Amino acid sequence: MVKVSVLYPNKPGSRFDIEYYLNTHMPMSARLLGDAIKAITVEIGRPARGGEPAPFAAICGFTCETVDDFMNAFTPVAGELQCDIPKYTDIEPVIQISDIRIG
Amino acid sequence: MVKVSVLYPNKPGSRFDIEYYLNTHMPMSARLLGDAIKAITVEIGRPARGGEPAPFAAICGFTCETVDDFMNAFTPVAGELQCDIPKYTDIEPVIQISDIRIG
Repeated sequence: MVKVSVLYPNKPGSRFDIEYYLNTHMPMSARLLGDAIKAITVEIGRPARGGEPAPFAAICGFTCETVDDFMNAFTPVAGELQCDIPKYTDIEPVIQISDIRIG
Repeated sequence: MVKVSVLYPNKPGSRFDIEYYLNTHMPMSARLLGDAIKAITVEIGRPARGGEPAPFAAICGFTCETVDDFMNAFTPVAGELQCDIPKYTDIEPVIQISDIRIG
């Protein structure tokens, strides 16, 4: 199994609308990507106790059987998903493709 | 529930011994941290098809009920865990504390 992670690095002054992301963007992603996605995880970064932002505003993970499964699901809807990003953030996400080894 | 993520950013020339990490360091972490940890995930970054390294060599996640549960488990064993890091990598990990919102 593979995980495609989308990480949003916090930068000073950056914007991230958690409610839009959780309530609109992620449901849209799940609907558009469809059955190729076996599991979705979303974590929202907690500020440190001193108020310093977390390294990442959010980290999202899409679990799929193979990278090809993900790419076949993503490619036809990439434009629609990417056009939605400015509605919740000005952070350029980092994309990581990993092999799931534990968990 | 919260997730404590440990991310190892790839840098040119950096070293990461996947087998030591999976077979020695992670079992040691699970044993030392004990029952406070409700789930452990490990993903190993895949190089891109052109051979470019993934943004992160590895991403590990510890799921706990609360940040305090994690800190109470981690603090007494932090030295032992941190001393083991040079055995598998010269990358300084990034620590992220998140609220699990989906998954």
